Amino acid sequence: MRILILGGDGYLGWPTAMRFSSRGHEIAVVDDFSRRRWHLRNSTDSLTPIRALADRVDAWRELSGDEIRTFVGSTCDAEFLDRVLAEVRPEVIVHYGEQPSAPYSMRSREAAIETQRTNVLGTLNLLHSIRDLVPDCHLIKLGTMGEYGTPNIDIEEGFLEVHHKGRSDVLPFPKQPGSIYHLSKVHDSHNIHFACRIWGLRSTDLNQGVVYGIETEESSSDERLLTRFDYDEYFGTVLNRFCVQAVIGHPLTVYGEGGQTRGFLNIRDTLQCVELAVANPAELGEYRVFNQFTEQFSVAELADLVRRAAAEVGHTVEVKHFPNPRIEAERHYYNATNTKLRDLGLEPVLLGEELVRSMLGIIGRYSDRVIERAILPTTRWKPGELEGELPPATSPRSQAP
Amino acid sequence: MRILILGGDGYLGWPTAMRFSSRGHEIAVVDDFSRRRWHLRNSTDSLTPIRALADRVDAWRELSGDEIRTFVGSTCDAEFLDRVLAEVRPEVIVHYGEQPSAPYSMRSREAAIETQRTNVLGTLNLLHSIRDLVPDCHLIKLGTMGEYGTPNIDIEEGFLEVHHKGRSDVLPFPKQPGSIYHLSKVHDSHNIHFACRIWGLRSTDLNQGVVYGIETEESSSDERLLTRFDYDEYFGTVLNRFCVQAVIGHPLTVYGEGGQTRGFLNIRDTLQCVELAVANPAELGEYRVFNQFTEQFSVAELADLVRRAAAEVGHTVEVKHFPNPRIEAERHYYNATNTKLRDLGLEPVLLGEELVRSMLGIIGRYSDRVIERAILPTTRWKPGELEGELPPATSPRSQAP
Repeated sequence: MRILILGGDGYLGWPTAMRFSSRGHEIAVVDDFSRRRWHLRNSTDSLTPIRALADRVDAWRELSGDEIRTFVGSTCDAEFLDRVLAEVRPEVIVHYGEQPSAPYSMRSREAAIETQRTNVLGTLNLLHSIRDLVPDCHLIKLGTMGEYGTPNIDIEEGFLEVHHKGRSDVLPFPKQPGSIYHLSKVHDSHNIHFACRIWGLRSTDLNQGVVYGIETEESSSDERLLTRFDYDEYFGTVLNRFCVQAVIGHPLTVYGEGGQTRGFLNIRDTLQCVELAVANPAELGEYRVFNQFTEQFSVAELADLVRRAAAEVGHTVEVKHFPNPRIEAERHYYNATNTKLRDLGLEPVLLGEELVRSMLGIIGRYSDRVIERAILPTTRWKPGELEGELPPATSPRSQAP
Repeated sequence: MRILILGGDGYLGWPTAMRFSSRGHEIAVVDDFSRRRWHLRNSTDSLTPIRALADRVDAWRELSGDEIRTFVGSTCDAEFLDRVLAEVRPEVIVHYGEQPSAPYSMRSREAAIETQRTNVLGTLNLLHSIRDLVPDCHLIKLGTMGEYGTPNIDIEEGFLEVHHKGRSDVLPFPKQPGSIYHLSKVHDSHNIHFACRIWGLRSTDLNQGVVYGIETEESSSDERLLTRFDYDEYFGTVLNRFCVQAVIGHPLTVYGEGGQTRGFLNIRDTLQCVELAVANPAELGEYRVFNQFTEQFSVAELADLVRRAAAEVGHTVEVKHFPNPRIEAERHYYNATNTKLRDLGLEPVLLGEELVRSMLGIIGRYSDRVIERAILPTTRWKPGELEGELPPATSPRSQAP
């Protein structure tokens, strides 16, 4: 199949490109290198030393014999996008091409506007290009579990059967996203749903949990194929960040009580899920949502897991509770459904101490590259609160007698 | 009070400015004249001959003795918006400053992007200005009943109590908007709700029905104070459009069966509702939604009402069913709640033949200004469908034996 990957230079995009290329598909990637530029601006970088996209593609050709085509440009550029779609004629588009960070979206007004412009208008632009050039194409869009927030009812996969005053309907699941970034994904979902309802497009919205892990089958074969690995305040997700902290002897940065529960999955499972979505496409006119995570953990549980796994390989790790820079419930009900991908055959890689130890080992190889300055949270959900030095926070549990 | 009106040169914005000015408030308006520019581009115009904003303000000063300050610029311009808010220090902002047309948003990719950029990014920008400069200010935002779509359950005011698998929560009402424009209002709602939850702002989201009518108490006192009145494909809402068609002898353009049911209200009631929201502000941190309409009608019922009222004043009116350019249910359940504004004291001006006859009378004064070319729908919700000449459509009822 002809598969186009938007954001194909990113943490998930590049491994996805290699995976589908290794399966014999015809692959093209689009990227405008915004993630690399954001890092440049922050004086931060990926833990893993990643190559330029052109070098990655050369290395992949050398090792696999397969070509990955590249297009450098933005999803917000209508003319560019039309040209790519006309040239590639994709049967599937996997869309990772968005600003993916909640704290980044909250750091300033400029970043907030940039996030919603890039994500919402970029995807709206893409929907028009698909409609006009490849209306049968299956759009696989990366959404997030964070769209749902933490409602006091079970989270279903995209839709909810509602009974109200003696009548009933199946309606979009109500959303209570917790950041400007998460809002942008909610807006995307509404726009894509509309494009399927009105224009007859087909789309799978993958409401993904928090991804962890470094290596995939393809990336581990040669250092030139490594994917990026972020651990900084903005782009480092919680488990990845904890693992880096453990290796360099930095206290694990738990925000608040650590009772925040979320869905998680291994980067290998992201690839498996996207493969399952490609192999089982949505119908024309169908907008479907898969909740893409394999396990639920609280932040405190993850900190504990990393501490235990690190202890076994000789790292003494301290878990520290910092004033929460986010505004979110630290204790809440959380039970999300994730049966649709399992029903299609997903076999999860589960998280355990052994897996964490293997991550710690890989991180150890690059620990001299860690920029410590980039780890502590400086962006506040509510500006003016928690300004200045963070007080030496203690665990609410350690305060209990 | 110091009240800032965004979109203060528009159909509702200008009458709102005069109303609050006449009540002794300190009024400033912002507009970038986009509605006038859109008309210019389409070679269309308001039925009523409206004056330049500066002339309106002069006339108002001359007649009332009161000053209305004006600021010309866009809500998307952060620096401009900050300057206005710092200068005016509004205690209330009434936000009409958006692209308000569903068909306009569907006419092209450019118009779709323009609509979501203007509305979503403009309002997101505004939320940041309020947060940083006037965090106690009450934002009264014009939303639309069209955010809800036509679910098979009763429509509540913004939120819904959901019972699911033995648990319950009050969650945002699920939205199924029917155009790129309606989507932009749904995105606004989510963004504003977030700003109230996270930043502690206060907002009333007025989910307004379709407005009809021309005159308000203030505008009828002098022709220089008239508000705009649109009847064209893009900016003319259904009842206003039907009244113009009746006066000039154009068949009433019912799209499809005409079973589409919506909430309606008189322009005088828009002013009453906004006054009630100002007088009864939301609490800090509160995001509340009022469904702002007074009566429900189907499009076919409105056509019938106009035909009857017009007949009494000597116009013979034909009702014609055109292939529906929109993708929407033409027969559906519709029952929306609207008790919150009534509980605050709203006394509706109800729609009847007399009111329609008065509208026909005013329209008659300006009937030589009607541009007939602008009336028939040319924008299709699904491009490529219904292209070319519209077939001579007949009512499904007239086809029945």
